[in-house]
Amino acid sequence: MTSIPHPDFRAARFASAPDARFVPAPADGVLPEDFFSTTNLPTYVRVRGEWRMPRDPRMDSALLIDRDGVLWVREMRRVRAGDLIAVGKKEDGSEGIYVSTEAAGGHGDGEFKFMASEVSREKPVDYAHLARLLVEQRERGGYIVWVTGPALVHSRARADMTWFIMNGFVSALLAGNAVAVHDIEASIFGTTLGMTGSGESTVGGHGLHMRAINKVRAAGSIERAVEAGVVTDGIMHACVKKRVPYVLCGSIRDDGPLPGVYTDTAAAQDAMKAHTTRATMAVMIATALHAIATGNMLPAFVAEPDGTLREMPTICVDSAEFVVSKLKDRGTHQAFGVVTNAQDFMHILRLFVERELDGRDTTLTSARPAVVAQ
Amino acid sequence: MTSIPHPDFRAARFASAPDARFVPAPADGVLPEDFFSTTNLPTYVRVRGEWRMPRDPRMDSALLIDRDGVLWVREMRRVRAGDLIAVGKKEDGSEGIYVSTEAAGGHGDGEFKFMASEVSREKPVDYAHLARLLVEQRERGGYIVWVTGPALVHSRARADMTWFIMNGFVSALLAGNAVAVHDIEASIFGTTLGMTGSGESTVGGHGLHMRAINKVRAAGSIERAVEAGVVTDGIMHACVKKRVPYVLCGSIRDDGPLPGVYTDTAAAQDAMKAHTTRATMAVMIATALHAIATGNMLPAFVAEPDGTLREMPTICVDSAEFVVSKLKDRGTHQAFGVVTNAQDFMHILRLFVERELDGRDTTLTSARPAVVAQ
Amino acid sequence: MTSIPHPDFRAARFASAPDARFVPAPADGVLPEDFFSTTNLPTYVRVRGEWRMPRDPRMDSALLIDRDGVLWVREMRRVRAGDLIAVGKKEDGSEGIYVSTEAAGGHGDGEFKFMASEVSREKPVDYAHLARLLVEQRERGGYIVWVTGPALVHSRARADMTWFIMNGFVSALLAGNAVAVHDIEASIFGTTLGMTGSGESTVGGHGLHMRAINKVRAAGSIERAVEAGVVTDGIMHACVKKRVPYVLCGSIRDDGPLPGVYTDTAAAQDAMKAHTTRATMAVMIATALHAIATGNMLPAFVAEPDGTLREMPTICVDSAEFVVSKLKDRGTHQAFGVVTNAQDFMHILRLFVERELDGRDTTLTSARPAVVAQ
Amino acid sequence: MTSIPHPDFRAARFASAPDARFVPAPADGVLPEDFFSTTNLPTYVRVRGEWRMPRDPRMDSALLIDRDGVLWVREMRRVRAGDLIAVGKKEDGSEGIYVSTEAAGGHGDGEFKFMASEVSREKPVDYAHLARLLVEQRERGGYIVWVTGPALVHSRARADMTWFIMNGFVSALLAGNAVAVHDIEASIFGTTLGMTGSGESTVGGHGLHMRAINKVRAAGSIERAVEAGVVTDGIMHACVKKRVPYVLCGSIRDDGPLPGVYTDTAAAQDAMKAHTTRATMAVMIATALHAIATGNMLPAFVAEPDGTLREMPTICVDSAEFVVSKLKDRGTHQAFGVVTNAQDFMHILRLFVERELDGRDTTLTSARPAVVAQ
Repeated sequence: MTSIPHPDFRAARFASAPDARFVPAPADGVLPEDFFSTTNLPTYVRVRGEWRMPRDPRMDSALLIDRDGVLWVREMRRVRAGDLIAVGKKEDGSEGIYVSTEAAGGHGDGEFKFMASEVSREKPVDYAHLARLLVEQRERGGYIVWVTGPALVHSRARADMTWFIMNGFVSALLAGNAVAVHDIEASIFGTTLGMTGSGESTVGGHGLHMRAINKVRAAGSIERAVEAGVVTDGIMHACVKKRVPYVLCGSIRDDGPLPGVYTDTAAAQDAMKAHTTRATMAVMIATALHAIATGNMLPAFVAEPDGTLREMPTICVDSAEFVVSKLKDRGTHQAFGVVTNAQDFMHILRLFVERELDGRDTTLTSARPAVVAQ
Repeated sequence: MTSIPHPDFRAARFASAPDARFVPAPADGVLPEDFFSTTNLPTYVRVRGEWRMPRDPRMDSALLIDRDGVLWVREMRRVRAGDLIAVGKKEDGSEGIYVSTEAAGGHGDGEFKFMASEVSREKPVDYAHLARLLVEQRERGGYIVWVTGPALVHSRARADMTWFIMNGFVSALLAGNAVAVHDIEASIFGTTLGMTGSGESTVGGHGLHMRAINKVRAAGSIERAVEAGVVTDGIMHACVKKRVPYVLCGSIRDDGPLPGVYTDTAAAQDAMKAHTTRATMAVMIATALHAIATGNMLPAFVAEPDGTLREMPTICVDSAEFVVSKLKDRGTHQAFGVVTNAQDFMHILRLFVERELDGRDTTLTSARPAVVAQ
Repeated sequence: MTSIPHPDFRAARFASAPDARFVPAPADGVLPEDFFSTTNLPTYVRVRGEWRMPRDPRMDSALLIDRDGVLWVREMRRVRAGDLIAVGKKEDGSEGIYVSTEAAGGHGDGEFKFMASEVSREKPVDYAHLARLLVEQRERGGYIVWVTGPALVHSRARADMTWFIMNGFVSALLAGNAVAVHDIEASIFGTTLGMTGSGESTVGGHGLHMRAINKVRAAGSIERAVEAGVVTDGIMHACVKKRVPYVLCGSIRDDGPLPGVYTDTAAAQDAMKAHTTRATMAVMIATALHAIATGNMLPAFVAEPDGTLREMPTICVDSAEFVVSKLKDRGTHQAFGVVTNAQDFMHILRLFVERELDGRDTTLTSARPAVVAQ
Repeated sequence: MTSIPHPDFRAARFASAPDARFVPAPADGVLPEDFFSTTNLPTYVRVRGEWRMPRDPRMDSALLIDRDGVLWVREMRRVRAGDLIAVGKKEDGSEGIYVSTEAAGGHGDGEFKFMASEVSREKPVDYAHLARLLVEQRERGGYIVWVTGPALVHSRARADMTWFIMNGFVSALLAGNAVAVHDIEASIFGTTLGMTGSGESTVGGHGLHMRAINKVRAAGSIERAVEAGVVTDGIMHACVKKRVPYVLCGSIRDDGPLPGVYTDTAAAQDAMKAHTTRATMAVMIATALHAIATGNMLPAFVAEPDGTLREMPTICVDSAEFVVSKLKDRGTHQAFGVVTNAQDFMHILRLFVERELDGRDTTLTSARPAVVAQ
């Protein structure tokens, strides 16, 4: 039960402060313009030179002084026409009202705030900003490492991920056996884990991912399965066609695995690190295991060729605040969290990247980077 | 520890079944085409007329018979070239292999399946289907009731929700005080709960929603605040302009409240029910309280003018499986759950509705419904 | 928009049904005893031999017939003294009221129900039943496989897990490098990931798990670290002391790893399977990766020595419904889900096991199993 | 892409720093005692008077200098016996190694840390501390306001909540209609929402909560239903018997409602505030609506009779990080979050309170407060 000290009102800033100003409410349940809006923190109001605390403190209300000179915190709906209400927006005492942020815990940066948590589904996502980041990275020859979980393949996001690979936004893909298995299952059978693209079960569906694995093992490698026409579209197909390097890391959940999967986790880490050391941006989608593993290896900063440093742009997308917070709690503090469904994220991000490219196209005319045509 | 009976193999279907067929594996770690893919359920293999259970049962593996005639479940990676592997895709005994679904609990509909749960972020969302539903409802004069939480306003979804109202897809809006407060805060101050559209805090931001409420209370009603030019865009503005009826229900969390909010919850229920009784479709977004309240009043069916019944299309969108499952657990079994971020849902849904309208436009040429022009 | 057929009221069960019975409400807002409580499904009421649907259908309300013979669904609070209200609890028509469950989707087992979803934090957990299962398994020499994530070690559950190992309730422990690392960090430094048992950070804390790993690598193995007195308590210490076999599976997230960790995921799977094939019960706590990996290998049933089969008791504990549902969606349908914090689960489970043992102790007196004394 | 400045190494603290010290690794894959454990932040190592950045930066690794004098960040497993490894635990340059926390975002308090997020299911809960708080509050005549959602009644927590009321730990109970409805349903019918205490459905169960409401409405009030023997145990029964004041706030989800429920939300707020203004501690369990509503009215501090201030102890319990974070994001920054199942929380908290009381009993002998005997 932490004790909260009262301010020392002998300090210069308080000594020179004016009395708080009170103005009559214009109507029942209506406050004067510029009313002071309260918080739940200790609040001091200067009345005739004296700093006093109002009764019934609570947030989102007004400060009222009654006929007896008693100060109250009063809800808007309970205010009557003519009641004297404090006005002012400053909380630092300079208008006669002081809010102590000592009790605000880690948020004591001088102001009471809503929405202070770092990771929340309620925070808006600035897709235009993300799109600009990606396009700039591509233009300046950055190295964008994508880290993805199978949710991307279970859903319609597969087409969007393929689009990002085909259009030069993916420098390396770090994933597990399951991403490749379900992507290839989708190419061969049109299902993922036996579920169709619209979420229906298929007869015998539970065996389809095993049949997909078996076909690639029979071909000898993913590359040969692509060449042989066994795998004709999707994420792995795009990686092979565009020669985008990928690392498929093994896990104890794996069926098969597919040829090329690193079953040794130390070897897999070495293969991942060959890409994280080159990374200038990281995008992590719908995977706790691979995101945290990559976060373990990823510097929080990029060293530019000229020796300057800047923060590593690191995006982490998941349906749950928990995964993003966990990534941060494992030391990847620089991660910017997006709390949403991976399928929807991919679709909107692609849309905004296309708009960003269109915008550049019309304004920069001749300077359109050749890579867009890929 | 429920006991699971063995099948009665004297039954006709088993008596007439053939022996299982075994085929050599073509290479190390590769299975023959059409291998039987195992489940974790009790499995019986007919060998020389006898139904036998294999050793080491597990899912996602193959059935192998060794030189001594012993049956094994064996992982693909452990199979050697020439090993005899069972083939067949039927699990009903008709190809000599029988999988007992007695142990599969409520899923005992004769087949082992993945992805059997009803509500999951891993289920794909068929936005085209949802868009078609909305457009058809509008065309046939349906009554689409929208139920929304403030997440829709905290984020960029506000513009998309406004678009749906302006374009005739919203017959009634059921929400709480907070939806209108933050929508109006956004119109007047450009923030929601003091946070800008890109997620930044503003100085003095915690009081802005109170100032927004106060301005509307001073105007007398939301309608008058729109007429007076205090509120110039957004959801409530669109409702007023398009004369879309809305019900703002009070709750104990409310600041203000805004004029027009039903502070009496029984009166609010009556006002809501005036719309649920007319509903032919319901869309519930990012609110447990209002979704379950509406679900309580909403029939699971629509009675057509001709007396036939059909299921009430009911969409429930939330970031968490829990809210959708809870709605179902409170009796709204017909709800189709979409597990995603409300902002992203609205944006993609609008995109698909625009595409659906474009498609109809080009194919139906002259028959374009006048309402589209709104 | 699925169509719902009306029942065929010429069928015998309807033909022989009585008219519904109506009784006056005893007071305003009060219903007669045995009032019929409505659902949101299509409902038919027999009035003078005719089956009719009431107006304003909704759940949790009463059936009222007005003076004009019109049937209404009416909320309790809107009923007035003397209003004629239908009574009866049967929904099958036998008391003159029929509820069609055709529209109830997969729940069409003849009754409208709340709380039908399988996995929910709202479902009560019968700890006494779980405790009995564990004690019985120990008494009959069952093979209880525990699968645990590091949440068990980050928190106070470590002491409880140690207790279960020391008291003979753990036949094998399947986990990852991190469980052992943080358990050993706790033994040597009193922290997990540098956080104390009460959740405080320590100076230099981020390196402590690396120092713990280094000490065990210097000792050569976990066993030797225990013998050398480097590791003096906790989960791994208990496994070594009680000779409980454990499998530590490698993953790409691993630091170190500790000696004895299977870095090859195929080898790790083989080591896990040596235990899953013997399992007669499985307990999975706070791990998606290891739970699903184990689920992949675990039969849904146990074959008793006498050839009979019974369902494999499989408990899955996680903070999120999603993990439990995902385990089921990957085919482990038999899993019983407990949605709670791992720390709290372990503590209460231990409490109930202790009570169960006490109960047996007093009633069975001399028959107390020797193993309890361990 | 925020730029991160290099430190000014001309500053006194750097000028006086020693070179980093390197020590040979004792064996392959083993580091020297006191090795420096790396972070993902910009790191500078003083070698022959010069501050240099190592190659391949990543966290959880060692600093190695090779024969050519090149600095590397190297994983423990890749170190060979005799490799020269930096030692030291200080990150402030005083041992020749400096870690720049400029890039650590809001966590730039001079140290890289794990587990920095405020609300996480991975944080341990100090039940002993919470128990002590409650017991002390009771002893000193504090006013403990409990705010609860229906999860407390759906589950076995009902008995524990009743215990807290009966034993003097609840000064006021703030809840909704549903809490009282299901508590009374449990008393009369032994079910909640028609589900038994072990989670089974009952025939006709969906109507039982309506029958419970009807019985109380027929009795006239909860108090009279208790007196008449209609309600014989549970939470409301305990409140009536112990004269603990309660506020039941109406919502649009309510069935009935029960007599005494405030259907007007403004009146409900006034009734709640009568208790929040007296509160010296708040416990909020499994309710977003009521917790945030209470948080809106609750000061973040307690003014002691002697004029000193201290932080208001505010506990918020929920299964999801989101609810706790949302409470904080609505301004109740002082809330301490416990992420767990409400049923388990209540059970363990009671256990620890009983232990705390036992402990006081034996140590304080004669000074046992009379109130314990209740």
